Amino acid sequence: MPEPFSLSAYLSEKRSAVEKALADIFREPGGPASRIREAMSYSLFAGGKRLRPILCIAAAEAVGGTQSQTMPAACALELIHTYSLIHDDLPGMDDDDLRRGLSTNHKVFGIGAAILAGDGLLTEAFRLLAGKGLSMPDSAPAFIRAMAIIAEAAGYLGMVGGQMADLDAEGKVVSLETLSFIHTHKTADLIAASVKAGAVLANADKPAFDSLGDYGINIGLAFQIRDDLLDVEGDANAMGKSTGSDNKRGKATYPALLGLDRSKEIQRNLVEKALKSIAAFDYRAQPLRAIAAYIIERKS
Amino acid sequence: MPEPFSLSAYLSEKRSAVEKALADIFREPGGPASRIREAMSYSLFAGGKRLRPILCIAAAEAVGGTQSQTMPAACALELIHTYSLIHDDLPGMDDDDLRRGLSTNHKVFGIGAAILAGDGLLTEAFRLLAGKGLSMPDSAPAFIRAMAIIAEAAGYLGMVGGQMADLDAEGKVVSLETLSFIHTHKTADLIAASVKAGAVLANADKPAFDSLGDYGINIGLAFQIRDDLLDVEGDANAMGKSTGSDNKRGKATYPALLGLDRSKEIQRNLVEKALKSIAAFDYRAQPLRAIAAYIIERKS
Repeated sequence: MPEPFSLSAYLSEKRSAVEKALADIFREPGGPASRIREAMSYSLFAGGKRLRPILCIAAAEAVGGTQSQTMPAACALELIHTYSLIHDDLPGMDDDDLRRGLSTNHKVFGIGAAILAGDGLLTEAFRLLAGKGLSMPDSAPAFIRAMAIIAEAAGYLGMVGGQMADLDAEGKVVSLETLSFIHTHKTADLIAASVKAGAVLANADKPAFDSLGDYGINIGLAFQIRDDLLDVEGDANAMGKSTGSDNKRGKATYPALLGLDRSKEIQRNLVEKALKSIAAFDYRAQPLRAIAAYIIERKS
Repeated sequence: MPEPFSLSAYLSEKRSAVEKALADIFREPGGPASRIREAMSYSLFAGGKRLRPILCIAAAEAVGGTQSQTMPAACALELIHTYSLIHDDLPGMDDDDLRRGLSTNHKVFGIGAAILAGDGLLTEAFRLLAGKGLSMPDSAPAFIRAMAIIAEAAGYLGMVGGQMADLDAEGKVVSLETLSFIHTHKTADLIAASVKAGAVLANADKPAFDSLGDYGINIGLAFQIRDDLLDVEGDANAMGKSTGSDNKRGKATYPALLGLDRSKEIQRNLVEKALKSIAAFDYRAQPLRAIAAYIIERKS
């Protein structure tokens, strides 16, 4: 019989395991490459929630897998997420000065260095996956599958394609269909890939993999709508960045298109759908269930 | 008995095979992701020499492998090379308007789109490798190894680290040691990885792999010194970009540090070393030998 579940204890335990694994990546000694390492580390250790790595681990654990099985993929997902934030903050993209209460990467290191830091983090994600796949030949097929899932979700058919559509939509009135395309790809795809990579590395069977994929895409969409809502209603201090910037920039968002009430209803419906898709899972899916609820309650 | 070898026929045959394989990547239909695809394709099909893919194939063939075995890695290398050029041309980096006689990516699509096009090409390289690895389970270990080699050479320990050091060196007087670090990492690492990935996918034994690696790093360095020389002595029309820009920008180059004559001597010595390291190979290494000579004779 499992103990009563505490999400905050779970998140904090997993977060510190992920922090430790991420720090290990940069353990190699300095040398002339030290400045690129500094720029990459600055954003990687700027206090993220580590949501994607935690989802990867939680999905694996939900089907009987282990944290250590999934840690390289969990770290790769955080490297990719961090690179996307650095590039997203650049002039020519969102041109932001603050992220998580700190100056953005290009404000500290310069634009060229920030472009390279992002490139370095993205490439390191795949070096990490390939390296671990090499050292564990029995798991090589699972690693390749995880890599294919992550690369598809991160690339032009996923996140990068969504960001381009987001950029194109600035200042325009877009349809709900376009908005849903943007949110699905720029945010939900990588969140779903986190869950699916965890499932694959834990050797989930096809039905469990599919259910976890449905869970992932639904909480991913809910996560982005929550982001839209926080930009309207959130507390700038809690979030460590300015609010109201979507509106200023003429960004396509759910509140702008459908209003606050309807947006909140949609995010609740998405979480319900996510919970339904993993309803048949046992108590080991408790973290996934609690995370789904947390995603639309979070203040930052 | 092999026919007399024509390098130009060889390069042109391989180049068209690579072009065809690259075009296949984007065969999937349009949809809302079409603009990112357009920005990625623009630079990918802007008339590159396809040197890295050809080296990958030639290295495989030198140890008895086939073109089709290596084509996914060959394409991945060109995707990575192309992304690096797009990001390198951005304001904040080299801020160039012309590349291969055409407007640079950000001049056509905008800065944000060019950042994303580069990100998309880099990610697609790994999606392609992982996808092919999945569809050929027997070759999965070789694919993972090729991926690890390519990711290491492209990332912060390789190309990205070299570009950062290059950026840092602008306007400064650097030592020969730093200059050699910059050239090795920003250029030679990915060229060496092209040769090594081809060797791995053709199941080369350890001595052959090591010899090909030595060949690769030496021609890679020679290639970058040739680039430095062309920026001083080259014909802007033949190259499709302005010359003299290294000098204007205070870039660390061999001619600036050692003068033209000494730089030419060094590039010749590097090619001699490259040829020596594959001296024991049979006639199937003829393309690699001819490419080594071509690299320091090329006009663009």
